[in-house]
Amino acid sequence: MAKLLALTFVLLALPAFALPPEPQEDAKAAILAVLLAQQAAWNQADLPKFLEGYWNSPELTFAGSDGIVRGYDGLLERYRRTYPDQKAMGTLAFSGLEVRPLGPEAALVLGRWHLSRTVGDAGGVFSLVFRRLPTGWRIIHDHTSVQK
Amino acid sequence: MAKLLALTFVLLALPAFALPPEPQEDAKAAILAVLLAQQAAWNQADLPKFLEGYWNSPELTFAGSDGIVRGYDGLLERYRRTYPDQKAMGTLAFSGLEVRPLGPEAALVLGRWHLSRTVGDAGGVFSLVFRRLPTGWRIIHDHTSVQK
Repeated sequence: MAKLLALTFVLLALPAFALPPEPQEDAKAAILAVLLAQQAAWNQADLPKFLEGYWNSPELTFAGSDGIVRGYDGLLERYRRTYPDQKAMGTLAFSGLEVRPLGPEAALVLGRWHLSRTVGDAGGVFSLVFRRLPTGWRIIHDHTSVQK
Repeated sequence: MAKLLALTFVLLALPAFALPPEPQEDAKAAILAVLLAQQAAWNQADLPKFLEGYWNSPELTFAGSDGIVRGYDGLLERYRRTYPDQKAMGTLAFSGLEVRPLGPEAALVLGRWHLSRTVGDAGGVFSLVFRRLPTGWRIIHDHTSVQK
């Protein structure tokens, strides 16, 4: 019984999910694949598919010059408001992507975004924090700036 | 000799520095102490002391609406250019600080900054990535936005 209790304690002390170790190069490749899938979804004007790169949680955060948006639903709504149609969305290209590991379960990604649009181009830089979740690597925080 | 080689291999395979484990609450307190020290240094118009909260490395990055600045020296220069005197610096107040651990050696911090100034107030949100270094917790990446 004491052994059983000790085992229970150890199990409770583990993180909410335990994932097997992953080589750093695999993590980088998985993260870049998420970003390429986002770029492709955007260029099909498919916002819900684009959002799949983010953590589906109320704790997801997005920071920018209009403050902090919280939650997956809040972020989808923000994207729908800012980019109401294909003309506003244009063609997205990411560039200069830098993946910096922050231990085995998290990474920082810096990069540039550019929208080619008939209504005027837009672009800037972003900082993404990725976490390794049971569903794969997902963005848990996005800070995006529009270039002046 | 084979044993010695094996030991050498193990030592090389370790991270560049190995720090003893630290309770999560201690990490949060240490990170908040860095930010409070930065706020105090700013309000003494002491930019080099304010910069001490950052990783002293050419790999330090700072992202904003004018792109990405690289390196400790580059960031000090940017601050000196943007805030040339005490009037431009004003009085800094951080608020709404949220510390989100990203494993034992890294953390994400969200917050708001506000400058009270005779030349006009300024403010916005920031995202900071902290790493636990041998010298203590330091900002390795800063993404700061100015509120519109």
